[in-house]
Order: sequence, then structure tokens, then C-alpha cells
Amino acid sequence: MDVDEIVEGILSGNKRALARAITFVENDYPEGKEILKRIFPKTGNAHIIGITGFPGVGKSTIVSKLTQEFRARGKTVGIVAIDPGSPFTGGALLGDRLRMDGLDSSKKLWIDPGVFFRSMSSRGRAGGLAAKTGDAVRLMDAFGFDIILVETVGAGQSEVDVIEVADTSIVALMPEMGDDIQINKAGILEIGDIYVVNKADLGGADKTERWIKAMLMMDQEAVEILTKTTHAQEYEIQTGKIFDKIPRAGWSPPVIKTVADKGEGIAELADAIEKHFDYLKTSGKLLETRKQRLSREMVEILVQEIKNYLKETDKVNFREIVEKVSKNDLDPHTAVEKIMKSILKDY
Amino acid sequence: MDVDEIVEGILSGNKRALARAITFVENDYPEGKEILKRIFPKTGNAHIIGITGFPGVGKSTIVSKLTQEFRARGKTVGIVAIDPGSPFTGGALLGDRLRMDGLDSSKKLWIDPGVFFRSMSSRGRAGGLAAKTGDAVRLMDAFGFDIILVETVGAGQSEVDVIEVADTSIVALMPEMGDDIQINKAGILEIGDIYVVNKADLGGADKTERWIKAMLMMDQEAVEILTKTTHAQEYEIQTGKIFDKIPRAGWSPPVIKTVADKGEGIAELADAIEKHFDYLKTSGKLLETRKQRLSREMVEILVQEIKNYLKETDKVNFREIVEKVSKNDLDPHTAVEKIMKSILKDY
Repeated sequence: MDVDEIVEGILSGNKRALARAITFVENDYPEGKEILKRIFPKTGNAHIIGITGFPGVGKSTIVSKLTQEFRARGKTVGIVAIDPGSPFTGGALLGDRLRMDGLDSSKKLWIDPGVFFRSMSSRGRAGGLAAKTGDAVRLMDAFGFDIILVETVGAGQSEVDVIEVADTSIVALMPEMGDDIQINKAGILEIGDIYVVNKADLGGADKTERWIKAMLMMDQEAVEILTKTTHAQEYEIQTGKIFDKIPRAGWSPPVIKTVADKGEGIAELADAIEKHFDYLKTSGKLLETRKQRLSREMVEILVQEIKNYLKETDKVNFREIVEKVSKNDLDPHTAVEKIMKSILKDY
Repeated sequence: MDVDEIVEGILSGNKRALARAITFVENDYPEGKEILKRIFPKTGNAHIIGITGFPGVGKSTIVSKLTQEFRARGKTVGIVAIDPGSPFTGGALLGDRLRMDGLDSSKKLWIDPGVFFRSMSSRGRAGGLAAKTGDAVRLMDAFGFDIILVETVGAGQSEVDVIEVADTSIVALMPEMGDDIQINKAGILEIGDIYVVNKADLGGADKTERWIKAMLMMDQEAVEILTKTTHAQEYEIQTGKIFDKIPRAGWSPPVIKTVADKGEGIAELADAIEKHFDYLKTSGKLLETRKQRLSREMVEILVQEIKNYLKETDKVNFREIVEKVSKNDLDPHTAVEKIMKSILKDY
């Protein structure tokens, strides 16, 4: 399949073409970029939903049941699972199999033409994960899925970056999953539009729910202070962000208790997701957040392109400079300044 | 304190000067860069030890006990804790207090002039965490600490990046902490030079130990294949890494069982750490890995500088370009190419 065939295939519902295109994007093949350029005008229609949380809370089950629910509501669903497996030990393949097993109880999803599943490996890729996830989502969007679910494991900065590809972010927790402070440390209580306490049939779900609500109130207060004053601007400057994050004013994240493997709470979760999408559209926030997302993605693409450029340009011998620094002949900051002077037009 | 006083202070053992310098670095103040340039020739003497693992495995306790052990062995210890707390809710301050509580059982560490503790927040900082951690470590190194311990929470890519500032990486686990596959998914079984199974007095520590060893053998095989063939080169090209990672050939990561809160296994852990440092020095790997670390840090500093440059240059109106892309008038990849052409000398 050449680029023309793939583009045509994606736009006419050929899943093999979609899979091929994602592989190109994932592996940084030039064809991937070309395909993305050509399908871009057809994007922007899907509702993109991110789901994150620590391992073991049952994200895969939630994704599976949610897919069934949306199918029952007449919507088509694309799924991207970010798998932090190793390129050495074949983590991505393992991830695929595991996730397929995880979805076993709903085997029919795998022969349902309205569903598409793809896992992407996050390890061993030099940066660009959020941009690559964004690109995969964009391909699925152009393909025509109504809903795109992005699942990611863990709660590090890279997971936060990935979840920010989404219009609606779901944070999945479970009762008594560690002490409260540990979860707050991971910073996941700032990225959710919807919180799920899964495995709610275990004891302690109510306590976890109350605690999430308390944490959200604290966060809300901080957001209000930042919105009212010019501190948001200062914060932007201080942290070196190109665009600042828009506070969640106008939306109070609900906390939904589920027992995903029994399907309990899944309809309520789907309702909350649809309600959030309506809120985004009617408030104008959808356009705003998508613009921010584009800006972040573009910065990431740019960073990747500049890394590629550094490897190829004859303006800078990076290895030689590192050699000098490692002999204490030059400090890293002065070295970077030298590189900037060599490659940039007006630095 | 001006830059001269701070530099002088660091080199003459003034902790207030050190703390001030780290604050400058953490907040991207220009003074930070100037201080780093000036202290750089005095760096390279400390043994830098990273410790990571999921929340709840007892990393803070291990760090505390290890600090006591190294003090008893006549070594001074600097500690950097990466706290993924929020800039909104004051996570960094909370982290400080928590970690102080965590170290309570060894209160004397806080009045010990041979110990210095600092937490750094990882959230709300636009990128550059590994570079910033590297800079903080470098300041402590110039100050003269024999040992520098870097503790990070979680196992996402950013934690992996942070741990890579270390000469010796410790991965802390505990018995039965979830199913095996979940841990492997997080990729933490590829970054350890030493593995710790803490809380070994709980049941199942032997099983966890056996399982880590089995996973390491698999990894070792993959490393051997990559070392023997030219696949390493291909891998490097495929993943777009500027420098490839050096496989751990020549060192078999030990698995050490500890009950940190009772001090059990801590001496063995300290022995393993010292043994690994000896191995790094005698094998020549210390220089090699430090060169790689410098190279990664420099890429990160460069990325940050280019982001800053983009905000200031009149060659590119980033917001305007994002606006166009968000209206589907331009696709993100073509947009980035335009930006590259505007800012780079020979793109």
C-alpha cells in the first residue's frame, strides 16, 4: 500500500490502511507525516476520551465495558492503549495480548466492525509520545470513529502528557489503594474531568469518594484564586509554559462508583462522559482546549524535529561537544549556548 | 547573597548558599545558570545513587536508613527527593514535611552537618526535570557530598529520565505488590543496577525475588543479542536516540531483601551500592555512563532553551500558527516545518 492508497483507505473505512498508517507514525517513517498532512482536514469530529490511573485499578475492564456501552448507544469506538513495555522484551506485543485477554469477556468487540483497537509502546521511543498518540488519535478521527478512548498506565508526567490529548480525562482509582497522600503526590487529582472509583464492591469506596471530593475542592479554590488574579500569567511565565492551562471553571468533576467487571456504574459513566462533551461544546471550551492541545503537540513535534536536525546538521558536532564537557573543559550550559548560536538564525 | 557569594558559599560548605542555588536552578533564574557554569569544574567526585519504585514500597524509609548507614561509614550525604506534587496545592512543601516526618525515627539526621535534604517539585514545570535534577545534583556534588541520593516516586518515563542522572540505580519493590505483569509494564525492570524487595517480613518476598531474577535473565538475553549483532545500531536509528544506551554487560543486578523500618538488609544494600561503584570505576563504565548522562542533559537543556527562544523571537508567531492549525487551514507537521525554516540557519 502506498501513501495514496492508505489515505484513501482511511477515508473509506479500511482498517488495514488505518493500522498501517499508525505503524508509520509510531516508527517515524516519512510516509506517516505525509499521511497525517493529507488526512488532517478530515479531523476534528471524534470525542476523545483519556483514561489513566495506577496499575491494577481495572482500566482495561472499564475501557472494554465502556466500549460495549457506547456501541449499544450506536457509536463507533477507536481505542489506543499506551503500553510502557520494553522494546527489548517485546512489551508492546505482550500488552496487545494481555489487553485482548482483558477484553475476553466481550469477545464480540473483536469482530465488531465499529471497534478498532491499537496499542502503542511508550518505552524506547525518544520523546514525542504525546505527539505520537495525538497523531494516532488523529488518524482514527479521520477514519470516522465517534469515540476515541486513550488508555494509559501509571501517573507520571508522560502519562499526564498523554491524557492531555483527550477532550475528556477520566482518572480511575479504587478503594484503599494506598494512603491518600501517595495518590496526591502523583498529581493525578488535577487532570480528571471525571473520577471513577472502580471495584466499588470492595470496602472503603465511600471513603475514597469523599476524599477525592475534598481534594477537588482544594484544587477548585486554587483555580479560583488563579482565575481571579493575574497570578495565572505569572505562573505561566515562571513555569516557562508557552500557553497556560485553562482552569476547569464551570465544570465540577463527578465521582462515579463502578464495579466494571459486573458492568455496574458503566451507564452512569457513559452519561457523565456525554454530559462533559456537551459542556465542552456549549461553553466553547472544546475549541479552546483543542487549540491548547495542538499547541502542545506542535511543541513536541518541533522538539523531535530539532533532535533529528541535530543528528544530521554539519553545523554542530554534538558528540565532540559532549566529549569536551565530560572532560570538564566546558560546562553544559555554555555548551548549549554555543549550539544555539551555531544553529539558530538570530540567537 | 549575590552569585559570587553563593558560588563561594557552595565551595566552602555553606548550606544556605547551596539551598539558594538550587532554588535559582529550580525556578530557571538566570543566576542559576551562572552559578552552574562557575561550580562545574569542581564537580564529578560524588557517587550519585537513584532510587525509584511505586508509591508505598517504603523508599523514604530506605533513603533514611541508607543515609544513617553511609554516615556511620564516614560519608557525607546529599538527598534530592523528586516530589510530583502540584504547584497549585503546594505539593512541594507538603512533600518536604512528609519526608521530614518519614525521617522522624532518625531525627538526628536533621541536625547532622553531613546531611542535606532537598525536595524538588516535578509538576507544573515545563519539561526539563531531568536536567534540573542533574543541576541540583551537580550543585551538591560541587558542595562536596560523598554520596548523593535521588529519590523519585512512580515509574513513568519522567521517573526513568530522572533516575538516569544516577551512577547507580536502585529499584525498590515489595512482596505481592500487584501482579507481575503490571510491574513489567511500567518498565522498571530495565533500569535497576540493584533491586530491593522491601517489607520482606511480609509473605511472598522469596517469590518476588525469584520473579525479578527471572525477568532480569530475559532482559540479559535481549541485551546480549543486541550487543552481539548490529541491531543496537538499527535500534538507535529506529528510535531516534542521539546516543544509545549501553547494555549492563559485566554487572548482574543483585536482589536484596530489606525490612527498612527495622534496618534489616540496609548494610547489605550499602555494600552492594559500594560494590557497584567500584565496578563502574574499574570497568571504565563510570566515565562512559556519565558522558551519556551529560549528553541527555544537554539535549534537555537545549530543548528548554529552544522553547524559551520561541517565546521571544520575532521570527515566529507561534500563537498565530496554532490559530491557523486549529482552523484546519494548516496541518501541524507542515506548520512545524515552517517554524523550522524560519528559525534554523540551514533547514
